[in-house]
Amino acid sequence: MNILALESSAVSASVALTEDEKLIAQSFQNCGLTHSRTLLPMAENLLANCGIGLDEVDAFAVAHGPGSFTGVRIGVATVKGLALGADKPCIGVSTLEAMAWGARALGGLLCCVMDARAGQVYNALFAVEDGVPQRLCRDRALKLTELGEEIGRTPYFLVGDGADLCYNTLKEKCPGLHLAPPELRYATGYGVAAAALPLLRTGKTCSPQDLDAFYLRRPQAERERLKRLSESKAN
Amino acid sequence: MNILALESSAVSASVALTEDEKLIAQSFQNCGLTHSRTLLPMAENLLANCGIGLDEVDAFAVAHGPGSFTGVRIGVATVKGLALGADKPCIGVSTLEAMAWGARALGGLLCCVMDARAGQVYNALFAVEDGVPQRLCRDRALKLTELGEEIGRTPYFLVGDGADLCYNTLKEKCPGLHLAPPELRYATGYGVAAAALPLLRTGKTCSPQDLDAFYLRRPQAERERLKRLSESKAN
Repeated sequence: MNILALESSAVSASVALTEDEKLIAQSFQNCGLTHSRTLLPMAENLLANCGIGLDEVDAFAVAHGPGSFTGVRIGVATVKGLALGADKPCIGVSTLEAMAWGARALGGLLCCVMDARAGQVYNALFAVEDGVPQRLCRDRALKLTELGEEIGRTPYFLVGDGADLCYNTLKEKCPGLHLAPPELRYATGYGVAAAALPLLRTGKTCSPQDLDAFYLRRPQAERERLKRLSESKAN
Repeated sequence: MNILALESSAVSASVALTEDEKLIAQSFQNCGLTHSRTLLPMAENLLANCGIGLDEVDAFAVAHGPGSFTGVRIGVATVKGLALGADKPCIGVSTLEAMAWGARALGGLLCCVMDARAGQVYNALFAVEDGVPQRLCRDRALKLTELGEEIGRTPYFLVGDGADLCYNTLKEKCPGLHLAPPELRYATGYGVAAAALPLLRTGKTCSPQDLDAFYLRRPQAERERLKRLSESKAN
């Protein structure tokens, strides 16, 4: 079964085409350009360069969050559009779980972290067993200091765009932390496709209409509006 | 320092752009299309999609063999052309060494194999130490049975387009063999760039004119011509 998978939740953008477990093609870029400019051309170039049409794709997968509000929205909207046009199902997967699939070759324990600003990270922990990442906790937003206390001296590979931040902040308190090598540190389309494959095989897909972004926190603009509202009520 | 790295020695094709150890962008495809059709568009799309010009590339690297005679020639010729146009140096690296760099996250011992037809493989063995693949033998063409005797029961990850062939032929005799996961099994532009970086840093580059393909055997057409010549002399 062919999956076209998109990832644009953080600083990097990536598109992959897989056939069952096999990686047919992948594009990845981490050059600081806006995903709204790069993601769709990446998907189009990838399919065109492989000579594969949208009608040959069985499902469209996307990292549906957590992550950058705009980045996640661009990925989800692009996949909705592609799937609606091709009349095929969608699969949304956790960005953190997709990262774990992409870095599973490292084995052992994986700490997937995205910079959520204001001293917080989006995080989930995984243990790789026989090449399959097993979830140790749900996706969550928490303070770096809290994550450090939980990790303690346990050895973890750090994956994600928050890996450097986490390593630099916690390396003294958590001597078991290691940065994943740069080629496996960022979420990829392959990771999204690999996380989506078991869901496709068990029919856990959704319609383009039902695909949605999955945020752990409200957008900053909304948080500020609610804060203003509660302040004006208090006065 | 920015490296644009191309890989087209076997069934897959890949292009990567790196800045020092960082992977900026990568394209990979393994869909059976001719490299002469896909490689240059992949490089052009990658640079264009990153907004980076050829003049911002410090060196052009290529997997210069061993591998498919035509595939290697396409990669080398493309890099010669790009480097000549941009007036920048070239770096040729072993395809097998590039594979080892691409799969270094697996750690341990790596057996890089390419199908060389007629029961032979192109092979080199590596031990990953602190994330750096250390060569255990030179690149060579040898019979699969000879490779099996050398490996014995030692645990190796199999990498390369000959991995399946090698695993299926030798798995009884060599119970320590494991297939690398599909996302790390094939040579990538990143692997080429990572193998080229130490050479660029120590000035071990060459001019586009001096870049050459590195074959372990003569091309089939030449082998057959020599065979005919020796037969006609014998008569």
